[in-house]
Amino acid sequence: MLIHCRDQKGIIAQVTAFFLSADGNIVYIDQYVDRENNEFFMRLECELPETVLIDTVRRDFEDKVATKFNMLWKLYTRSRNLKMALFVSKYEHCLYDLLSRCSVGELKVDIPLIISNHDDLRIAAERFGIPFYHIPVTAATKPEAEEQQLRLLEEHSVDFIVLARYMQIVSPKVIGRYPNKIINIHHSFLPAFPGAKPYHSAFSRGVKIIGATSHYVTEELDEGPIIEQDTIRVSHVHSIDDFIMKGKDLERIVLSRAIKLHAERKTMVYGNKTIIFS
Amino acid sequence: MLIHCRDQKGIIAQVTAFFLSADGNIVYIDQYVDRENNEFFMRLECELPETVLIDTVRRDFEDKVATKFNMLWKLYTRSRNLKMALFVSKYEHCLYDLLSRCSVGELKVDIPLIISNHDDLRIAAERFGIPFYHIPVTAATKPEAEEQQLRLLEEHSVDFIVLARYMQIVSPKVIGRYPNKIINIHHSFLPAFPGAKPYHSAFSRGVKIIGATSHYVTEELDEGPIIEQDTIRVSHVHSIDDFIMKGKDLERIVLSRAIKLHAERKTMVYGNKTIIFS
Amino acid sequence: MLIHCRDQKGIIAQVTAFFLSADGNIVYIDQYVDRENNEFFMRLECELPETVLIDTVRRDFEDKVATKFNMLWKLYTRSRNLKMALFVSKYEHCLYDLLSRCSVGELKVDIPLIISNHDDLRIAAERFGIPFYHIPVTAATKPEAEEQQLRLLEEHSVDFIVLARYMQIVSPKVIGRYPNKIINIHHSFLPAFPGAKPYHSAFSRGVKIIGATSHYVTEELDEGPIIEQDTIRVSHVHSIDDFIMKGKDLERIVLSRAIKLHAERKTMVYGNKTIIFS
Amino acid sequence: MLIHCRDQKGIIAQVTAFFLSADGNIVYIDQYVDRENNEFFMRLECELPETVLIDTVRRDFEDKVATKFNMLWKLYTRSRNLKMALFVSKYEHCLYDLLSRCSVGELKVDIPLIISNHDDLRIAAERFGIPFYHIPVTAATKPEAEEQQLRLLEEHSVDFIVLARYMQIVSPKVIGRYPNKIINIHHSFLPAFPGAKPYHSAFSRGVKIIGATSHYVTEELDEGPIIEQDTIRVSHVHSIDDFIMKGKDLERIVLSRAIKLHAERKTMVYGNKTIIFS
Repeated sequence: MLIHCRDQKGIIAQVTAFFLSADGNIVYIDQYVDRENNEFFMRLECELPETVLIDTVRRDFEDKVATKFNMLWKLYTRSRNLKMALFVSKYEHCLYDLLSRCSVGELKVDIPLIISNHDDLRIAAERFGIPFYHIPVTAATKPEAEEQQLRLLEEHSVDFIVLARYMQIVSPKVIGRYPNKIINIHHSFLPAFPGAKPYHSAFSRGVKIIGATSHYVTEELDEGPIIEQDTIRVSHVHSIDDFIMKGKDLERIVLSRAIKLHAERKTMVYGNKTIIFS
Repeated sequence: MLIHCRDQKGIIAQVTAFFLSADGNIVYIDQYVDRENNEFFMRLECELPETVLIDTVRRDFEDKVATKFNMLWKLYTRSRNLKMALFVSKYEHCLYDLLSRCSVGELKVDIPLIISNHDDLRIAAERFGIPFYHIPVTAATKPEAEEQQLRLLEEHSVDFIVLARYMQIVSPKVIGRYPNKIINIHHSFLPAFPGAKPYHSAFSRGVKIIGATSHYVTEELDEGPIIEQDTIRVSHVHSIDDFIMKGKDLERIVLSRAIKLHAERKTMVYGNKTIIFS
Repeated sequence: MLIHCRDQKGIIAQVTAFFLSADGNIVYIDQYVDRENNEFFMRLECELPETVLIDTVRRDFEDKVATKFNMLWKLYTRSRNLKMALFVSKYEHCLYDLLSRCSVGELKVDIPLIISNHDDLRIAAERFGIPFYHIPVTAATKPEAEEQQLRLLEEHSVDFIVLARYMQIVSPKVIGRYPNKIINIHHSFLPAFPGAKPYHSAFSRGVKIIGATSHYVTEELDEGPIIEQDTIRVSHVHSIDDFIMKGKDLERIVLSRAIKLHAERKTMVYGNKTIIFS
Repeated sequence: MLIHCRDQKGIIAQVTAFFLSADGNIVYIDQYVDRENNEFFMRLECELPETVLIDTVRRDFEDKVATKFNMLWKLYTRSRNLKMALFVSKYEHCLYDLLSRCSVGELKVDIPLIISNHDDLRIAAERFGIPFYHIPVTAATKPEAEEQQLRLLEEHSVDFIVLARYMQIVSPKVIGRYPNKIINIHHSFLPAFPGAKPYHSAFSRGVKIIGATSHYVTEELDEGPIIEQDTIRVSHVHSIDDFIMKGKDLERIVLSRAIKLHAERKTMVYGNKTIIFS
């Protein structure tokens, strides 16, 4: 369960008392208070008896607790994996990494489809038996291509989208349909080096550390709420190609961590920032 | 407040309800459950109205909550800094680092005295105006020296002891008097390279990373509950002297972090492990 | 070219002069001197005119330079990828990672075969089109199984072997046939937690950082020359399963880096340590 | 010795042959070639017989080697520590850290004076017995203040300047007098968050990692050649004050590493980048 509301006295006491009265066993609870803005956030995991009807719990919680505190809240069950659509272009390292991780159960998500504006990575999809849709995108065909993408996403009941080095800008229309549900990997330590060719920029600036950033996609390019980042040392001996090679490991790890956090409902977006529960 | 008890239903609900009824405002709450052993741990920060008597809160909590759950608990107030005694020998990097951090308010502890088995570091103590006691220790004089140490610690109402590269083994008697209140810095990534000359051992093993470990002192040398560790990369080009030099930064940082955690009551010892609250 | 000899005056001058006289262009040179033991190590990359016969260079170098300094040396050409055999059991994360990296050209090695004592990972091999040999190993059949392994390795002209979480101890016979050519990944920060179940040991010791170590296999289990290590932070909230999950990323990265270093001839073994050129 | 010239065949051979002929023993040599721009850089340490006159070596090297390759080069001796002036304002963590490190011999530099635009840190200077000059700076008095600074720097034969959180912009005049000899510490991972209040900017952007950067000061604020950087993880639970506290450790370490590299002549500036020798 994820909860967001104004900070008020007694929230924790009443939420925990509620689950206690429902004969639940709280196995995880974490909360965060933004003191400056007086906002309260909570994540809670609870084991409920099998006889309990989840819809009853939801209705009761709304009536007995949520209304009082004017809460925004969501209660999720573990019954099924989220469905993740992958968007790719020509870079294959993140794609292979995610396919492998899902295949071995490290990432508990299902991948109903892969969409690409190029046909190059079809082989990777085929190796792992995932449907691959090649939808070319040009300036002229972009609106039409996006219609086709949205149709496919709907047909496959996709829960969220991952841009695994998809080299196209996603339009506001698609973003609006999947708010805070599109995860991108950017190959720099944002906000340093947004936009195209960040490794080249990092090289020419002479930085001693490079990074990668995974964030939710918003209409402002590379400006969305950051989910996860990591960095690695480089030096003057490394060429741009070395930067790219070292960066690939960062991208793989940062993106897979972000997806794991999202899939386990450990992220909350608040303003342009994320709260990441442990 | 720190709480430890068997895991049971309703703990969080009742603890939070208690502080709510005392008109308190919970500003921090974190809890951890060891599922395997069914143990519950909690750390809670609460702002109470000035009119509230802390002893009344303590008595009420014991009566209304703690007894029911059979809790071990401690309630601390922020009214004063802890008093930290420093034990040193000849290495000065940790000593200077801690004196500086306390001097600038980065570590909120008072240092009533420094005890050393050598006179070398008196200058550092004098620079920062801290009383320095030179108590030589030989096999023959050790019991007597420890008596003198204990007397001084008591006279200065010391709350906890930090061995800032003190090159002597502390006897069970002293450890018994300050249980889980003596913090040591060991210059390796424990449990690798316990005992003497860990940098030499690390060098001869050819490791690619070295570390430092801060832990509570128990009777088993270098086996106490670990509070904090960190590591740094080395390579074949580094000599033992380079290891030592790089290690100094690790030691400084790891030890100062451990002290900060201890001083802010963010550590709980459980078995031979620590729980470190955020 | 890799060179090892006693440290003497004039080595660099004469080696570089030799390649200059052969009309070569030195594009990389790095050297390391172990002052304590007076040993000299060098790695050098040189572009030679196409008309030059590599065997002539080798003979001339031996005659004009190597003999004088009593050098151990090897001169390699870039003409072909090394052939790497993978040994696996049931853990698939390293296997998938290596297959992906080779498939996309990130690791410049060929994989002629995968050998496993279990049949579980055949699917991964098939997905990437690599021959998979299931050779069960029991105490009774071990000698025979190793004969079969050695035969296969020879048939496929394997250059080096990678134990990608192969859960069997490799016998001295195999090690003797591939000296400093068998790379293992151990899932701890060696020398801490050698042997079986290191994550369990790390958990029970309460460490705050876990690691992974890639090393050349010698007859002493987990005691061979370390090629690469890395670490990641953990805390009391992490279960053994969390350790294992976090460790998988370490294992993948540490093993793939070690293989890359080996494949690019950037490692030299000296005593029980490695020299890793940049 | 540091060397910079166009990349040409035979440089290494002739340089090493030169020192061989001077009866020198090369104990360190490292070189870097920028292939794109065809530039060659080298750092070399050599033990010369005591009978050798260093000026003769310099003249001979110029005549026999440097002229031929059109080299820029410098030959330094170990005979004395460099003299480092510290500029500070009100933040004391870097100042204490550097004073301690110099005091214990970890940084092999002398500190003839500390200059500050505020009087607050006089106590730190006095504790370590370093002359402290309080030179207030206002918009009106800036030119005059800088004259006074330059006079003091000259009087004390200062070799290089360290801005240890000096909260003033240094004018082109001072920079021109000490080109690539003024080292600044900026409390962000540049080029992210240049200018004032980087921790505040990092907090408001919601980054998951913060950093610090040490660089040579040029006329473009926070744009000079980067010497060293490092990063540390943060999360949504950390306030701006936490960022600042965590950042202090980064600043201390990054700045002291940069000074050590500079003092040991391991840095070369090339364009707007540095080459950092090992």
